[in-house]
Amino acid sequence: MSRRSFASDNGAGAHPEVLAALAGVNEGHVPAYGADEHTARAEALIRKELGDTARPFLVFGGTGANVTALAAVLQPHEAVICAETAHINVDECGAPERHVGCKLIPVVTTDGKLTPELVKPAIKGIGAEHHAQPRVISISQSTEYGTVYTPSELSALADFAHANRLLLHVDGARLANAAAAIGVPLRAITADAGVDLLSFGATKNGAIGAEAVVFFREEPAKKFKYIRKQGMQLPSKMRFVAAQFEALLTDDLWLLSAQHANAMARRLANGVRGLPGVRITQPVEANAVFAILPPERIASLQEKFFFYVWDEQKHEVRWMTAWDTTEDDVDGFVGELRVES
Amino acid sequence: MSRRSFASDNGAGAHPEVLAALAGVNEGHVPAYGADEHTARAEALIRKELGDTARPFLVFGGTGANVTALAAVLQPHEAVICAETAHINVDECGAPERHVGCKLIPVVTTDGKLTPELVKPAIKGIGAEHHAQPRVISISQSTEYGTVYTPSELSALADFAHANRLLLHVDGARLANAAAAIGVPLRAITADAGVDLLSFGATKNGAIGAEAVVFFREEPAKKFKYIRKQGMQLPSKMRFVAAQFEALLTDDLWLLSAQHANAMARRLANGVRGLPGVRITQPVEANAVFAILPPERIASLQEKFFFYVWDEQKHEVRWMTAWDTTEDDVDGFVGELRVES
Amino acid sequence: MSRRSFASDNGAGAHPEVLAALAGVNEGHVPAYGADEHTARAEALIRKELGDTARPFLVFGGTGANVTALAAVLQPHEAVICAETAHINVDECGAPERHVGCKLIPVVTTDGKLTPELVKPAIKGIGAEHHAQPRVISISQSTEYGTVYTPSELSALADFAHANRLLLHVDGARLANAAAAIGVPLRAITADAGVDLLSFGATKNGAIGAEAVVFFREEPAKKFKYIRKQGMQLPSKMRFVAAQFEALLTDDLWLLSAQHANAMARRLANGVRGLPGVRITQPVEANAVFAILPPERIASLQEKFFFYVWDEQKHEVRWMTAWDTTEDDVDGFVGELRVES
Amino acid sequence: MSRRSFASDNGAGAHPEVLAALAGVNEGHVPAYGADEHTARAEALIRKELGDTARPFLVFGGTGANVTALAAVLQPHEAVICAETAHINVDECGAPERHVGCKLIPVVTTDGKLTPELVKPAIKGIGAEHHAQPRVISISQSTEYGTVYTPSELSALADFAHANRLLLHVDGARLANAAAAIGVPLRAITADAGVDLLSFGATKNGAIGAEAVVFFREEPAKKFKYIRKQGMQLPSKMRFVAAQFEALLTDDLWLLSAQHANAMARRLANGVRGLPGVRITQPVEANAVFAILPPERIASLQEKFFFYVWDEQKHEVRWMTAWDTTEDDVDGFVGELRVES
Repeated sequence: MSRRSFASDNGAGAHPEVLAALAGVNEGHVPAYGADEHTARAEALIRKELGDTARPFLVFGGTGANVTALAAVLQPHEAVICAETAHINVDECGAPERHVGCKLIPVVTTDGKLTPELVKPAIKGIGAEHHAQPRVISISQSTEYGTVYTPSELSALADFAHANRLLLHVDGARLANAAAAIGVPLRAITADAGVDLLSFGATKNGAIGAEAVVFFREEPAKKFKYIRKQGMQLPSKMRFVAAQFEALLTDDLWLLSAQHANAMARRLANGVRGLPGVRITQPVEANAVFAILPPERIASLQEKFFFYVWDEQKHEVRWMTAWDTTEDDVDGFVGELRVES
Repeated sequence: MSRRSFASDNGAGAHPEVLAALAGVNEGHVPAYGADEHTARAEALIRKELGDTARPFLVFGGTGANVTALAAVLQPHEAVICAETAHINVDECGAPERHVGCKLIPVVTTDGKLTPELVKPAIKGIGAEHHAQPRVISISQSTEYGTVYTPSELSALADFAHANRLLLHVDGARLANAAAAIGVPLRAITADAGVDLLSFGATKNGAIGAEAVVFFREEPAKKFKYIRKQGMQLPSKMRFVAAQFEALLTDDLWLLSAQHANAMARRLANGVRGLPGVRITQPVEANAVFAILPPERIASLQEKFFFYVWDEQKHEVRWMTAWDTTEDDVDGFVGELRVES
Repeated sequence: MSRRSFASDNGAGAHPEVLAALAGVNEGHVPAYGADEHTARAEALIRKELGDTARPFLVFGGTGANVTALAAVLQPHEAVICAETAHINVDECGAPERHVGCKLIPVVTTDGKLTPELVKPAIKGIGAEHHAQPRVISISQSTEYGTVYTPSELSALADFAHANRLLLHVDGARLANAAAAIGVPLRAITADAGVDLLSFGATKNGAIGAEAVVFFREEPAKKFKYIRKQGMQLPSKMRFVAAQFEALLTDDLWLLSAQHANAMARRLANGVRGLPGVRITQPVEANAVFAILPPERIASLQEKFFFYVWDEQKHEVRWMTAWDTTEDDVDGFVGELRVES
Repeated sequence: MSRRSFASDNGAGAHPEVLAALAGVNEGHVPAYGADEHTARAEALIRKELGDTARPFLVFGGTGANVTALAAVLQPHEAVICAETAHINVDECGAPERHVGCKLIPVVTTDGKLTPELVKPAIKGIGAEHHAQPRVISISQSTEYGTVYTPSELSALADFAHANRLLLHVDGARLANAAAAIGVPLRAITADAGVDLLSFGATKNGAIGAEAVVFFREEPAKKFKYIRKQGMQLPSKMRFVAAQFEALLTDDLWLLSAQHANAMARRLANGVRGLPGVRITQPVEANAVFAILPPERIASLQEKFFFYVWDEQKHEVRWMTAWDTTEDDVDGFVGELRVES
């Protein structure tokens, strides 16, 4: 296995600044559970990026962020409309259903992105007690396919949601990559676009493990502290989660890391595009490359590099880059593929 | 506020060895979600301490450890018998009820410790569909009152549990303090005593945030990976949780840290015992001191030191020590109390 | 076994008027799920008894009524304060915990009745995220001990609840018996006393199976249709549930039936009071008699009559009367006990 | 509105024999909650129809039957594969998700029927903790489209399920109609075909409200009494549910009623087939007719007859017949449609 694989941005370690930040907050005793100054500072930095309406709450993990965020705005008889490929639908082992008790309504997409047109048919049975009532549209930014919603696409979805009395949730496990991809501030793809609630990920962006739930509305924020605790997402030594956010949100470390990861994905895509037998299947906008290639080449590549087959039927693979992927890593990978061609 | 308070062992930072361990595992890419060698090593170290029947699973937090551990052995129509003061009953915002769907049956105790005699009356309605069926006895070791179960007390409870077709769960958020208090290996108060499942805490013992669920039976362990993920307790960059356990379980760092914390509690208790108006209310066996003192002295002490009032009615306070509490911290605190006397 | 036992008012059949009412609504097709005129009529009759603020919803059963009623006003991180002996706490196999996800906080009582004084210590940890937040006080009227809350006791509890931002729920599986016992209209012990939500039972009052959830507030009523359906409590052929209420609420059949059941309990109590070895342990206010008697007499009585031992330790039994219990039934029972004395 | 509509078989009343049976069991006191001889008799009759491996449990309603049946065989991290149109997926307001906590995986079909080929792609991610693990295939017999599985189709599904370590659940709200449609005993489409668990409906077959959960395996049956109670599906005066089953399962009343309903659907279909602008869209195998017709004719028909539009987009309507639908009802309806043509 190469030192840096193309399996997942979760396979990367933490940025040195993040580790330094942990040491930086370690001295002495501070109040537990977030009543400390480090947490206050991290929250302030999040508000600085996402705007004054942002109400951030730090949590342990990404699944926990999604599930508790949804729990704060959904009643069990309500439903979430999401892409069939959404992390909440396929990669959380049914956590939303179990913990929130709600229904997910999956919508088929080609690129992991929802549009008002795609969502519309899923809004039905409104007012009829036999049917779970749609309440949230949940999207991933960037998506599980590495595609990115533009601010105008987000606004269109938010307007559509609000016109139908729905809320717009963004699973932003890779929000940084999305903002970096389109070159806008984080608030342009959240608060300014009409997003109502956000799972804001730091882990894949270079943390060791730090996520935040951010509400852009008051009501769910008011009761969220209980939901976070009951949802098993309240870190006791919160200062260490806060420090990670502080590191990433200082001097644009989040942006530089995301830009780099995205650039490595583009470099990879550019390197393999046009190779015989290799077909890139999704726009390469963030830090993922999806490609179809002959099964025997998948097998031989996997002997040297660790990555996942996304769709066994189609022989489609996913290559992810991270904040620490180097040009050498990419070039070595591309070289290997070229040699085999 | 003093640099080291007496509010909670959660108020302490991490041991330097733990921080060093994080840096030590940071290089390169490793498989996410625990399929890495660091996790394998941490699990092996846990088995080394707890015996070969131990099946450890690393998780984010203590509430998550308790809830997912219970979820693995309970059906929703079953019940957990616990002390009225148990963390699962009063400090987890109803997480067991929400996530497992089960009932908790609280039992009144004087010192936070259950005995077969205390538990027995709660075992009733067996076989009658109208009543939630007791399935688990859950105890805290050390308890929320800082008291400690001896190996023979644990064996008696385990035997009683098994004779009644119940399992024995230990909330070991402070298991290290308990083992240190009575001077036995960890396995003497877990596997060897007949414990069936354990929440094994590292956070309060000097980690930044690391806990483990440990089963001493095969069946719940088989399906636990799903329960952990669905329970939002599966860290993606697991190596960083593993590294913390590795640090604490190397060269008995866990034991030295717990011994020190316990010693500081004894020092504090010895320092204030006998002061006019001060009454220590629980045996000081681990790292907590409970005391009743006049309300005006509580107020004036709290101006200088951060700690919690445990029972407003009784004017009972809780003073916790941690791995990093110094003799100076204790002596300063005691001195303040002496001056006021 | 005697034709009419003293085991439970659930052991009785239905009043002939109820059966006649079923036949009376059987003709032709009507809309399912409650959109029919019979349901409208039953709801109007309930409002006539309980006042214009009453918003009734018919459901299948008593446990379902309690659980869905609570689900409409509780979030999972909130808690219900109830008597330790409450049906929701001991006789519903943990249904509130599983379906609502909330915590129950049991309070010890001597007679099954809560008072502000008893409830007060259970209201704690308000605003602290670690603790499930009390939201509802739930009482049973008449209680599981056959005791009855007076209107002024109810008002005191309701005022206390509201002053503490809590709601008052009444499990009225035997509401008719309570109203009959104190000789007041149903609304005197519900709407007029400040009750916020009610489980209104007809089954034990002479129906074959019919209950209603009644809200005296608008908000929970607005969404309750979804909660009832998701809570598996929406009868498809609703007209048959409606007909039962219509029968009982016509010409005071509910009252006459309850008065009769209560009178039979008084007759039974009067008959056995003072017998050597027999001690009545609770005030006989509704249709239950609790008594302690020597275990050998319990055994010999049970050979001839079906009834339950309430507390094995204390040799306390429960004798219930029903709408159809006859004076002969009672006298035969009392006679048997006299003979043995 | 006509006396007998074509809206739903839930709009029909009860068969006179069912009402007579209620009166027949009304006398005297019997044990509550199913410990009575009437319940024993009903269970014996169910076993007589479904075979000796059948373990029946009477419940209140159809949604409750489905949800509690699934709760008995699923853990929350497991999933149910069902047709997108399944009652559990679209008509139960998310009850399975809320009460069981599990995920539903909907599969698109043309006629409401699943096949091994359709199910196969939904079985994926086996053994991977990120994905809810398929455990049950749930089908409706007859389906929501009025189509019927043959015994060999059922065996093929059951064999496929078992080969993949899945169970086969049948939502038999209209099981009688299916058996009548293909002229086989009930056990030919349940026990003999390899079905593992069944929701056995009596309500639509002529009861006032009576359903049963039937297991053809021992383990779920052992614990089901708790799941039924906790699932709010345990009728207290059970004898009245039992009596309804007894009536329908005596002298083949269930079969005659279903045969008649089916015949009325065929008569209706035959009457309208070929009318200009009318297109029947599904095979008419049980008691439902699905047809597309011009929207203006839907509107004018609905002024005289009560029925539902199934798909607003396609102008597709659903006409249901019931045990009490008469030839005159059908001929009047067809005549109306002919006149308009």
